[in-house]
Amino acid sequence: MVDINSFAVLGGDKRQAALAESIAADGYTVYAWGFDRLDLSESVRKTDLAEAVSKCVNIVLPLPVTQDGVFLNAKYTDEKVRLDEGLAELMLHKQVFGGKMGKLFATSDLWYSIDTCDYYAREEFAVRNAIATSEGAIEIAVREYAGTLNGGRCLVAGFGRIGKALAWMLRGMGAHVTVSARKPEDFAWIELYGYEAIHTDHIGHSGSYDVVFNTIPAMVFNRRLLAKMRPGTLLIDLASEPGGVDFPSAGELGIPTVHALSLPGKVAPKASGEIIKNIIYSVMEE
Amino acid sequence: MVDINSFAVLGGDKRQAALAESIAADGYTVYAWGFDRLDLSESVRKTDLAEAVSKCVNIVLPLPVTQDGVFLNAKYTDEKVRLDEGLAELMLHKQVFGGKMGKLFATSDLWYSIDTCDYYAREEFAVRNAIATSEGAIEIAVREYAGTLNGGRCLVAGFGRIGKALAWMLRGMGAHVTVSARKPEDFAWIELYGYEAIHTDHIGHSGSYDVVFNTIPAMVFNRRLLAKMRPGTLLIDLASEPGGVDFPSAGELGIPTVHALSLPGKVAPKASGEIIKNIIYSVMEE
Amino acid sequence: MVDINSFAVLGGDKRQAALAESIAADGYTVYAWGFDRLDLSESVRKTDLAEAVSKCVNIVLPLPVTQDGVFLNAKYTDEKVRLDEGLAELMLHKQVFGGKMGKLFATSDLWYSIDTCDYYAREEFAVRNAIATSEGAIEIAVREYAGTLNGGRCLVAGFGRIGKALAWMLRGMGAHVTVSARKPEDFAWIELYGYEAIHTDHIGHSGSYDVVFNTIPAMVFNRRLLAKMRPGTLLIDLASEPGGVDFPSAGELGIPTVHALSLPGKVAPKASGEIIKNIIYSVMEE
Amino acid sequence: MVDINSFAVLGGDKRQAALAESIAADGYTVYAWGFDRLDLSESVRKTDLAEAVSKCVNIVLPLPVTQDGVFLNAKYTDEKVRLDEGLAELMLHKQVFGGKMGKLFATSDLWYSIDTCDYYAREEFAVRNAIATSEGAIEIAVREYAGTLNGGRCLVAGFGRIGKALAWMLRGMGAHVTVSARKPEDFAWIELYGYEAIHTDHIGHSGSYDVVFNTIPAMVFNRRLLAKMRPGTLLIDLASEPGGVDFPSAGELGIPTVHALSLPGKVAPKASGEIIKNIIYSVMEE
Repeated sequence: MVDINSFAVLGGDKRQAALAESIAADGYTVYAWGFDRLDLSESVRKTDLAEAVSKCVNIVLPLPVTQDGVFLNAKYTDEKVRLDEGLAELMLHKQVFGGKMGKLFATSDLWYSIDTCDYYAREEFAVRNAIATSEGAIEIAVREYAGTLNGGRCLVAGFGRIGKALAWMLRGMGAHVTVSARKPEDFAWIELYGYEAIHTDHIGHSGSYDVVFNTIPAMVFNRRLLAKMRPGTLLIDLASEPGGVDFPSAGELGIPTVHALSLPGKVAPKASGEIIKNIIYSVMEE
Repeated sequence: MVDINSFAVLGGDKRQAALAESIAADGYTVYAWGFDRLDLSESVRKTDLAEAVSKCVNIVLPLPVTQDGVFLNAKYTDEKVRLDEGLAELMLHKQVFGGKMGKLFATSDLWYSIDTCDYYAREEFAVRNAIATSEGAIEIAVREYAGTLNGGRCLVAGFGRIGKALAWMLRGMGAHVTVSARKPEDFAWIELYGYEAIHTDHIGHSGSYDVVFNTIPAMVFNRRLLAKMRPGTLLIDLASEPGGVDFPSAGELGIPTVHALSLPGKVAPKASGEIIKNIIYSVMEE
Repeated sequence: MVDINSFAVLGGDKRQAALAESIAADGYTVYAWGFDRLDLSESVRKTDLAEAVSKCVNIVLPLPVTQDGVFLNAKYTDEKVRLDEGLAELMLHKQVFGGKMGKLFATSDLWYSIDTCDYYAREEFAVRNAIATSEGAIEIAVREYAGTLNGGRCLVAGFGRIGKALAWMLRGMGAHVTVSARKPEDFAWIELYGYEAIHTDHIGHSGSYDVVFNTIPAMVFNRRLLAKMRPGTLLIDLASEPGGVDFPSAGELGIPTVHALSLPGKVAPKASGEIIKNIIYSVMEE
Repeated sequence: MVDINSFAVLGGDKRQAALAESIAADGYTVYAWGFDRLDLSESVRKTDLAEAVSKCVNIVLPLPVTQDGVFLNAKYTDEKVRLDEGLAELMLHKQVFGGKMGKLFATSDLWYSIDTCDYYAREEFAVRNAIATSEGAIEIAVREYAGTLNGGRCLVAGFGRIGKALAWMLRGMGAHVTVSARKPEDFAWIELYGYEAIHTDHIGHSGSYDVVFNTIPAMVFNRRLLAKMRPGTLLIDLASEPGGVDFPSAGELGIPTVHALSLPGKVAPKASGEIIKNIIYSVMEE
């Protein structure tokens, strides 16, 4: 029998595991597949995928749903689940949540008849993710930089979600924060919040920094710009692949770099699970 | 010939190495002993201890000067220098800086005729050290706690230097901060700075936290108190040995703990070196 | 002769006076009309309107250009300048800056051939204006509320520019800040910045406040909502006419109110002048 | 009959009136004398002084108890109560609270047999008072300074209680804050909290400010220093009489000044009443 208060959590990483635990702690029945190598509490029922789907109306797929477009993303099991017509058929008449669902939809036309919600596409997911990314960036900076952020000169390149969250936290720790942007209204906000504002095109002429955080998904820190930076400046790239830093040149120029990817899943799986849960709940209420 | 603008930096850890580099970068001549296993820039002259002392008026000993009261503290060499009458004789007519010099003074009465300055005993050293300790504590919390500090409930036990610095930074990152203290005026300051205040004796009755930071060098987190805490709460002890936590009980009660010692030397050797340098300079000016 | 480095500042209030002074202090020639009752420094040349226009390429009109659609807004003179075909003719081939220029354009078709720039319509103007409005709101709250903002419970209704700036400053002073909004991503930002978030529709159920700031230009604080508020709560309405508060009902219900209008011109004419100047300069550079 | 849960509130200003209201709101019986020209709620019983004292064990005198050493300080009545042997006799066997009680004690030796508590002398009173003083100073600065504090350059002279509270709030509003002090450990704290530190002796050489707040009760801003300041700088003196500014010289040098006295009673009588109440309660519990 299908229980409308049951959830099937299928695959993913520690974020999905935390999500399963958190939904179960709210009193719902939760079936989980794909966590063979993780300890879950007894309130989450580990089972096989077909049974999990058959018992539940609400299906939660991971973020991303798939890496390769062929198999379901499931870090903590050796089992492989192929994304195919058969899987899509199982999902008919279900409410399916997932992150970055594009490649999944390409695997079967049936998906266009299924009620889906891409939680990754929700703006509030992106904002809350920026928090975890910022904290992860701070953790790296404290670990790798031999000075203290308090009193240190930090540049945040870019004033999108991560730039906004990170600059705020750095100032809150007592760093001298400069933020680069391109739009006059961004300069107004940057100065309002107590940072120095510079144009992204002028980063190279703006003095020296102890730690530079890049959040811009474009090749901003090219060899020309890197050559103007003080050797020894720590450069942490938070932009997703391929990033915004010419890493080989940085190495040659004596600029230590960290390309920090997927920080939310690493530093804050529990928080990420909560974010996804809250989006699922609010979609169910809508 | 003795050069009054020369410094001998003898032993220690990365803080002393950073100190040596920083003094050299200011244009002074710096001789260093005790860094065989560390790369230093060419501006610092590695030499043996006797030569270093003979060439300089200003001698910088590590923090602590000695661990065991027998040998000079020197993490990056296999050479052993005994603290004895002979060493003290070398230091006559020098200006000797060091950290925690008590055990050294016990090794020879000559030390009472030598001009010494314990930089560790300077209040501004303690304050600036609290910054590095706080950043190290935040780094641990981001790494070990599965949620985000932003929006998380944090307790800082104790409102001394580390408590003040840490609470300030945590609020600056967006945590909900509660601080425990005992004096009415501390409660006034705690509330002024935007934290919740509780009496240290009432920690057990004050709701649940995501991360607890202890800064009190006394057994506050005994079994009775730990038993009242929510299992899973991360407990980071920043108090020096023996700390303020009953670690075995915490383990039994399902409370993960980290006993974080000597954070300044680990997370911010460069900043620590700068602090020591600035104290040395200001003592020389006095 | 027309000097391309000359500016005519025509009418307005203390913001335009400050603007004239500031441009003059930068070394440009500034002619000003409309400030009979204000002392200006000697670097600003008071003259009549026709001469000012004839000498300059850059013409700065006030904010708003006109209150009534008939005469130029000029607070500090008794002279009246009619907005008509003749005035428009004077402006041909000039670069004309002004604030809220709509009513002006309706006075002559010639305006469509004139190069104009409405500085009020620039996003960065609105953002920087929000700072002055927020400070003015804080000034009122300190003066009118018998407690302290530090430790007080403040509600900011609305998370637009003013809501963002004001909430940030209030938290910076140590208030407990709740912000109301409607969109999930706004809730995410509100919580990130360390405030409580509530839905604007639920203000009435969200506990009691010491000071409430309304920034929403709609009748949110109607009689029904006011009836749920604690009498004595100070309610400061920052929304432009007609505002967002049922003032008669508030009076009857014992809720003291302040309808705070045009704060930037009142509390920060110099800052406002600077903002306008910077926009003019950046437009000239574009 | 004497009621040990009754309080007599005798004289003072709006702080004592707020105190009387607040104690009454907690359910205690409150008699009040000295508020003829103030409306009090019905829960506070206005009566004559002798009756109030006879009915109560807890007597609350104002802050200061007396201005002139002759009469009881009572701003809102025309009645005069002489501080003499007779008044002291009335107080025998009572618990008497008051602020700045020195001059009172000089009026009769009986006072040395009376159980008294000077709430003004309590450290937490001073700290919490610093909050109200700081907010009052900010109110003045917003009103008098033609720019915005956000982005403005502010100097806070002195790092005592008011200096600490005020600097914190100013940074929280986005000002660039410089704090002057004399001790190395104060410099460490000043920098930790994100301000610039300068030595008080070097204020004259430290660049220009938009607003200067003096908290030092000594003649720091003498003619020599004022002559080095930029004319137009707003100078707000928060030090009690005679203050720390050479006001005549400031006037001659074109430096606008405000000598702001007794701000807590003016801007936050309710908060001040709460502070006094909390001290009274905690003394009663001790």
